[in-house]
Amino acid sequence: MGSQWSTGRIEAFSDGVFAIAITLLVLEIQVPESDFGNLWYGIAHQWPSYLAYATSFLTIGGIWMAHHGMFRRLRFANQRVMVINLLLLMAVAFLPFPTKLMAETIHTNGPERAAAIFYGASLLVTSVLISALWRSVALDRGLLNPEVSDKEFYAILQATTPSIGFYVVVILLAIFVPQVAPFGYLAIAAFAVLRARGDRAPTSSADPA
Amino acid sequence: MGSQWSTGRIEAFSDGVFAIAITLLVLEIQVPESDFGNLWYGIAHQWPSYLAYATSFLTIGGIWMAHHGMFRRLRFANQRVMVINLLLLMAVAFLPFPTKLMAETIHTNGPERAAAIFYGASLLVTSVLISALWRSVALDRGLLNPEVSDKEFYAILQATTPSIGFYVVVILLAIFVPQVAPFGYLAIAAFAVLRARGDRAPTSSADPA
Amino acid sequence: MGSQWSTGRIEAFSDGVFAIAITLLVLEIQVPESDFGNLWYGIAHQWPSYLAYATSFLTIGGIWMAHHGMFRRLRFANQRVMVINLLLLMAVAFLPFPTKLMAETIHTNGPERAAAIFYGASLLVTSVLISALWRSVALDRGLLNPEVSDKEFYAILQATTPSIGFYVVVILLAIFVPQVAPFGYLAIAAFAVLRARGDRAPTSSADPA
Amino acid sequence: MGSQWSTGRIEAFSDGVFAIAITLLVLEIQVPESDFGNLWYGIAHQWPSYLAYATSFLTIGGIWMAHHGMFRRLRFANQRVMVINLLLLMAVAFLPFPTKLMAETIHTNGPERAAAIFYGASLLVTSVLISALWRSVALDRGLLNPEVSDKEFYAILQATTPSIGFYVVVILLAIFVPQVAPFGYLAIAAFAVLRARGDRAPTSSADPA
Repeated sequence: MGSQWSTGRIEAFSDGVFAIAITLLVLEIQVPESDFGNLWYGIAHQWPSYLAYATSFLTIGGIWMAHHGMFRRLRFANQRVMVINLLLLMAVAFLPFPTKLMAETIHTNGPERAAAIFYGASLLVTSVLISALWRSVALDRGLLNPEVSDKEFYAILQATTPSIGFYVVVILLAIFVPQVAPFGYLAIAAFAVLRARGDRAPTSSADPA
Repeated sequence: MGSQWSTGRIEAFSDGVFAIAITLLVLEIQVPESDFGNLWYGIAHQWPSYLAYATSFLTIGGIWMAHHGMFRRLRFANQRVMVINLLLLMAVAFLPFPTKLMAETIHTNGPERAAAIFYGASLLVTSVLISALWRSVALDRGLLNPEVSDKEFYAILQATTPSIGFYVVVILLAIFVPQVAPFGYLAIAAFAVLRARGDRAPTSSADPA
Repeated sequence: MGSQWSTGRIEAFSDGVFAIAITLLVLEIQVPESDFGNLWYGIAHQWPSYLAYATSFLTIGGIWMAHHGMFRRLRFANQRVMVINLLLLMAVAFLPFPTKLMAETIHTNGPERAAAIFYGASLLVTSVLISALWRSVALDRGLLNPEVSDKEFYAILQATTPSIGFYVVVILLAIFVPQVAPFGYLAIAAFAVLRARGDRAPTSSADPA
Repeated sequence: MGSQWSTGRIEAFSDGVFAIAITLLVLEIQVPESDFGNLWYGIAHQWPSYLAYATSFLTIGGIWMAHHGMFRRLRFANQRVMVINLLLLMAVAFLPFPTKLMAETIHTNGPERAAAIFYGASLLVTSVLISALWRSVALDRGLLNPEVSDKEFYAILQATTPSIGFYVVVILLAIFVPQVAPFGYLAIAAFAVLRARGDRAPTSSADPA
């Protein structure tokens, strides 16, 4: 239970899973041959797939950015971090399934509610797990690089927390207006990408933007 | 035959195969369109797929953790380690096939016995190969980092050995009650993840948990 | 907004996405069982798939080479570079879809125009994004390694710019003679691979070729 | 044309492509639902798929080992090495297609000849390209690490050359007895794995085996 793990290979393996999960999403997009007669219509008709693709891509991209920022601040991982990280990867690698389901049902009346809620719940789980990953570090500050200040530690915690609340709100929204929920998920993902914190605060001379 | 291989790129290539095999598992999960009328039922009805997904994911995750702990202790690999590692990767990359087969047949009466035994046999092979990988190191202690003690060497050997026995027990169980076997495989995988040894024992000041 | 990101893991994650997108392309190639009676004909009949495969492979390969050359010259990335890079990866991971569409329709009369234009537009987007990635560095020269000269900076900018113009020309061509466009895209990709600039200019003693 | 490329990222990208191509092979293996009534028969009946899987897996594994040994001896790559490496990756990533074709047709009479020859030709191309990669280094010895002796350089060249001859022989064999050819390809792959040379010759104290 008290083992230590070097972070380099955890990052490499996690990056592999993130990169593959993010890339597999495109395999689900297809124009049925019956739409080849009017292919521009057929391409346009797949918009739910593009929306679902962009949402899941940005969601996983945002998780990768948060993951990157967290592991750069660790000296090593313990057993608890390893297990939570593995559960996070399991949740991320699962996303292509609810993504496909939401894309397939958005056109139809009836199943689109269940699909939107199921997709949101899957995103919520990943969000809870990335937050739990960082909280588990709080239980053993010896895992952190010594130069990480308390202020920086809490800034990262606060950067991952709001998504959880947003997901709960949009899932509730999906119960009443399921067609709107996918756009809500996309907005949360875009917001998380823009809000992600880097490996360190800017040095005084760099990036005044 | 006496060649030496640096471990960095073996780790990178192995991580790639582990990450892809673990992520491809989701491609097999699908709700048939005939279940779109009652999508919540359709999603719930796929529980064998989720069980098989979680089991194979945790199994490969546990193998990755053991692999990580082993290669961190090697100075370099010889030809024998390279060949066993390649066979291990071949067995791991094969897992999506028996995983899918078990998920497809668990509902039906008849083929579920063969599928559960075939899946268990595939897991047993990976377990034997990861154990053989470490045993092959014992034949040439010059491969090990000098700071690895005999006690540590045998602790790793003992960490991988029990799974082999557990798999034999659950495969025998599958002959009589095949429906129970998948849960047995999941328990073995979860146990292996929790039992995995890190890159090194904890330093005195770290992780009192 | 002023965060800094180390480039090592961005390269690893991007390489993962490039490698997977480039490898998934083959999954679309298939000889229908009805052509098994005359398999040589069936294999030859898939030439549009091979053409599309080679074109997308070389396009992604060229983007990878440009990406490699750019990130080797960065000290670290800022938020803007991270976001543009993520959009670039999203466009690259999307390519298997228009690739498949073009391969499927090249034989048939009618949809091949839309498919060729849609494919070209997808390539144009990746080309604009890799160019935007480097332009965004120009807004904050503090991101660059100090040894990168202005001359080198502009040489890289000029190496990525012409593709944009070429794509516009071939897309316009595709409106009138869609069957010719795929070969135009292939030529652009091959040209980009041959034109790619390395990590640094050759040292005086090396490679007189 | 005279650019230099650092090898680290070429190795990472190539490893990604090798790892994915090797792992995608399993996606083609499937037991048709009509064989679920007698699943042991159905599993056994897929033996051509297992044979094709093992052959392509070991072939790509052997190429990876040769690639590993080559790039460890390079100081950097030039444009020519980059282009040949990209063509090699294109050939390797293509292998799942002829692999699937051979597995599908081995049972049937007629198409199995074309499939065995087409598969062998694809393997021959990868073998020629990995050999060409190393020969292209001979044109500019400045690419090599200074400690690589001429003897070592030619030993690597000789390690990759025989496969080319073997493939030609087995392809000719496939014209007359196509059913035997797959086993020939497997033997060549196994032989290449066992013959692969490491990063460096053994040091005096290591691995007397």
